[in-house]
This record gives sequence, structure tokens and C-alpha cells, in this order.
Amino acid sequence: MSTEKDQRPVILTGDRTTGPLHLGHYAGSLKNRVALQHSHRQYLLLADTQALTDNAGDPAKVRRNVLEVALDYLAVGIDPAQTTICLQSGLPALAELTLLYLNFVTVARLERNPTIKEEIQARGFGRDIPAGFLCYPAAQAADITGFRASVVPIGEDQAPLIEQTNEIVRRINRQIGRDVLPEARALIPSVGRLPGVDGKAKMSKSQGNAIPLSASPDEIRDAVHRMYTDPNHLRAFDPGTVEGNVVFTYLDAFDGDQAMVRELKAHYRRGGLGDAVVKRRLEDILQTLLAPIRERRAALARDPGYVLGVVRAGTRSAQNRTQATLDELRSGLGLIALDDIDGGVRKLA
Amino acid sequence: MSTEKDQRPVILTGDRTTGPLHLGHYAGSLKNRVALQHSHRQYLLLADTQALTDNAGDPAKVRRNVLEVALDYLAVGIDPAQTTICLQSGLPALAELTLLYLNFVTVARLERNPTIKEEIQARGFGRDIPAGFLCYPAAQAADITGFRASVVPIGEDQAPLIEQTNEIVRRINRQIGRDVLPEARALIPSVGRLPGVDGKAKMSKSQGNAIPLSASPDEIRDAVHRMYTDPNHLRAFDPGTVEGNVVFTYLDAFDGDQAMVRELKAHYRRGGLGDAVVKRRLEDILQTLLAPIRERRAALARDPGYVLGVVRAGTRSAQNRTQATLDELRSGLGLIALDDIDGGVRKLA
Repeated sequence: MSTEKDQRPVILTGDRTTGPLHLGHYAGSLKNRVALQHSHRQYLLLADTQALTDNAGDPAKVRRNVLEVALDYLAVGIDPAQTTICLQSGLPALAELTLLYLNFVTVARLERNPTIKEEIQARGFGRDIPAGFLCYPAAQAADITGFRASVVPIGEDQAPLIEQTNEIVRRINRQIGRDVLPEARALIPSVGRLPGVDGKAKMSKSQGNAIPLSASPDEIRDAVHRMYTDPNHLRAFDPGTVEGNVVFTYLDAFDGDQAMVRELKAHYRRGGLGDAVVKRRLEDILQTLLAPIRERRAALARDPGYVLGVVRAGTRSAQNRTQATLDELRSGLGLIALDDIDGGVRKLA
Repeated sequence: MSTEKDQRPVILTGDRTTGPLHLGHYAGSLKNRVALQHSHRQYLLLADTQALTDNAGDPAKVRRNVLEVALDYLAVGIDPAQTTICLQSGLPALAELTLLYLNFVTVARLERNPTIKEEIQARGFGRDIPAGFLCYPAAQAADITGFRASVVPIGEDQAPLIEQTNEIVRRINRQIGRDVLPEARALIPSVGRLPGVDGKAKMSKSQGNAIPLSASPDEIRDAVHRMYTDPNHLRAFDPGTVEGNVVFTYLDAFDGDQAMVRELKAHYRRGGLGDAVVKRRLEDILQTLLAPIRERRAALARDPGYVLGVVRAGTRSAQNRTQATLDELRSGLGLIALDDIDGGVRKLA
């Protein structure tokens, strides 16, 4: 797909390989990616190196989930002919770019990064934060710029990481004296983050409140059945609350008939609409959405050779692209490259 | 030189490529390396990546001095058939190992490192320390372990860096469950650090108190002439002080006849020995020491193709060695390697 003439804007996105993806990923990013892959040159990073920054004690989990996430990508309709799926740890140029960028950013600046601050708090690292975790904004800048991405789809809370990337980009471009690296623009999805089935803000496998993309019909039914609604809506004829009611939040996200969703909300608010009725509607929608994904996923899982072949080919292509960026940066900064030694003694001496 | 049967202990050492080397380097490390290369499997790293951690604003200096330092190595008698001279930035596996190790060390631990603490103070970084500089103990651990070095010649003040390396080694070996990486042992030279010609503790090009290895006969004469002695020793027949007297410190380091040096010291202490006499002796010794080095260096400088060929061949060999270490670590930790994808779908799936 990648040709010199490809004028489409470049997107870099991806997922940490710490677990199979779920409905929250589908609503928040996967669905968009399937749409964007036609209008954009899209790179999807299986971020195993980044996953290690807070999973150093369990690398096997990180490894195992490379295949799981790749299966999820292909199952939802990511097309390897349109999108390059690649493995972060197979791209040494990204590690080299990360180390280079760490020289252009201060420790104080990394510590001020709000995303890092929050994550440190959320994970309870305190002073014992792994150095790799503190450095992760530089690694992310390496990912984005390594692919020369100009568009980066992210959650609203990740905007500071794009700002950090662009600071490094401007610093490098200023030093080289021309715009070698493009600045990146955040693409923040219109759909907010999908809550867990228990009503908690974030759907997460570790919280047990997620619906995986591979969920069986029974699992989907159970998840919708135990979904958090309005705890005070005890009898169907009582008025109920729609805000914070997960069933309605999911209908907002997945129901193709939003006029009907508005009607249902009004009915629920004035009373006379039971939870069972709206849950049945949501369950039907989710069964219809997930059935083909589950089936494709199961078929692909029987042929891991094909899936890994896709990752292998994508990684090879990404190696070329990221190495080209590293070479251009080194040359622009006046650093030595092994090629200088190989081919151009005069350049160096 | 490297064969599977090579049982010699492995040494990793090298220099930041920020300037040509000087007499202080010769006394403190180069002389030892020339001797050690026969009994040890020695890797000499042209540390351009590390030099960038506090020279990001002037990469051209770092680049230019790759050749200068390589010239110094060959001029003093480093034998490419015995020692592998290699370029740090040509070894992506070291960057990947560095990022991996950053996950196994906390920010607090890096900040506690006494060497880092002192250097931060000496360079006046304060809170604005470049992140790459803070991370440099992890990069050094990558260098040492990437080559599987068991012996690392260092200055006394660098011992904490070896301790930091061994902490990472033990952490990784414990997690893998066997001793994949060897612990490193510091080799601290018997000769202390050579002072500058002005009597300051450290000889340094930027302080203008160094005698470069390429110094001309006139430069050597001038340097000895203005050398710091005993400021109170105004007349030859007065008693003089030997301690802190740079001329005697240099005679300690370079005079082949140490019995004579002891006699001269006694004479100087009781009075009757003028500075001019000891300076003449030192100058003769330095001229004799540096003349062949200067000549070899000049001859090599006329053939940069040969010098860079040595670096290229050494770097290729070092690429294999460091990549093998990275592969073994990844496999031991249960991480995915691109080879797994290439060859062993079953390993992964």
C-alpha cells in the first residue's frame, strides 16, 4: 500500500499488548480505525515495548497478548492491505529515537506531564516509578515521529502527550534548521469513554466489568443482565434516571436508531418503561454487533500463521519507514551514521 | 579474534567522543588497555550516543571526534586484531537493552546514584537535567551487559555505576531464573587521576591544562615549562614541596626509573634542586613517550579510510555480539522476538 505517491495523512495509533480488546476499545478507537484506514495511511502499533514499562514483572503476559490484539484488529475489520499492523519491539529505530529524544527533554518536564502525573497516582507508583514509565512520553514521541504521523487518535486525557511530542519536534526542527519532522495533531473521538457494565468510569478486563470482543452469546446476555441502571428505579412504572445509566450510555454508543433512543429515554424518565425492556433492546444490538466479530476472530485464531504473517510483513515495512526517519534525523543533526562509515569516508573525515 | 573458544575475560571500556584524548587518558586508561588486550577479550566503545546526553546542542562535535578518538586508540598501540573498536550509535541492540533496563530501575534509584548526583552538580544541571543524562546508568548497564563484560576498567568515582549495573543484572537473572548475564567487576587502575599542568585535579581540554596525544615538541616543551610546581620554591637552594607538585606527580606516572625519582624528591625537599632541572627530565621523558604516538597518529590521519574501516569492521562484529545478548534476554524473559514470528509460530501461538 505504501507508495511514494501516497498523499494520505499518516495516522499512528495502537494498543498496549496487555490483554484482548473489548467493547470499550471498539467504541473508542477500533470502529474509527476501520473507517479511517481508507482516507488515511494508517499504522497500528502492537505496543509490547510500552506495555513492559509497567509490566516488567510479567513479560509473558505482554508476549501472549501480541497475538490476541492482532486477532482483535483483524476480526473487527482492520484490512492489512490498507493498514500496517506492526510490532513495536521489532522496530529498533524507535528505541534509538527514544534515547535521542531523552536528550532533548528535561526530567522536570517529564514530571510535569499531566498524563504521567495522573498515571503515577492511579498506579500507586509514588517515588518508585520505573524510569521507563517516566520516559514514556519520549517513547511515544519516537513512535509518532518515527512514522512521521501527523494525526494521532487519542483520548481527551492524553492531549499533553501530543503537546510533549510537538515540543520535541520543534526543538529538533529548530536545531536542524528545517522541518524534518511534522508536528502531530490529536484526533479526539466524538464518543466519550465507554463505562464498565458496573457503571465504573472505565471498562477494564482487570475490573471484571468489560465485554470482550470474543464474548459468547451467553457472556453478552449475562453482562447486559447485570448492567448498572438506576438503582432507585425499582418498579417499571416509577420514573427513572437516564444519566449514569449504563444501558442508555451503551444505546447512545451502539444503537443505529438514535431517534428511538431519545424516545426510550423520555419514556424511562416519565415512568412506565422497565429496565428489562431496554436491556433486551441493547442485548439484541450487541449480539448483532459482536456475532460476526466473534466468528471472524475464532476463524483467524485457528490460523495463527496467517495472523503472524500479517504482523511480520507489517513490521518489516515499518522497519524501513522508521529507520529512514532515524537516518534523516541523524544526518540533519550532523550525527554519524554507520552508512557514513560504509560509504562516505569523506563525509566524516 | 572472537571465537567460541576464546576463554579470556571480556572487558568493556571506551570514551565519549567529545574531544581528542590526552596524556591523562594515556596514564589513566590507554596504557592499561594496550597491555590488557592480550590477556583479555577487549571491546572499546566510541561512546557517541552517551556523549550526546550532555551535548545535544552540538552533535557535530560528537561526530567529528569519532575519528579523533579512533586515531588516538590506534596511535597508542591498540591493535584491531586484539581489540574490537566499535561505534555505540551503530549498535541498536544497546538502545533496546537500555529501554528494557529502564523498566527494571526506579527514578528514585537513578537519582540516588552518587556519580549522577555529582555530575549533575558539576554540570550545573539542577532540575533541568536532560532525561537522557539521568538514564545514563541504565545505558551504561546496557553497554556492559550487551557485551557480556565481566571486567570494566573505571575511575574510583565510577564504582556506583558498576553497582547499579549489577543490581540490574541480578534483577534480570532472578526473573529469568538463571544467570543469563554476568555480573561485572570494576578494575580500578593503580595510578590515580593525572592532574592538569596547572595543578587542577583534572586534566581537561576545555580547561586548557591538557597535553594532547598529538602535541608537537614545542607544545610539550611549553606545557612542561608552565607546569605548576611549588609556588614558594623561589630559589633553587630553598627546600621545596613535592606533594601537589605536578612535575613530580608526572614523574611518578611516567619516569621508568622510580629509584631516581625518589632521590630527586629527597633532594628537592632538602633544597638545592631547581625546578628547571626536574622539568628538563620530565620534558625528555614526555618527548620520548609522545614522539612515536604523534608520528603514528599523523600517518593514520592521512588514511582515514583505513581507520574508519577498522571502526566499521569492529562495529559489525559488535552488532552480532550485542544482538545475541538482546535475543537471549528477550527469550529468557518470555518476550517476543521477530524471529519467533519469522520462524516459530508455535512458540507464540
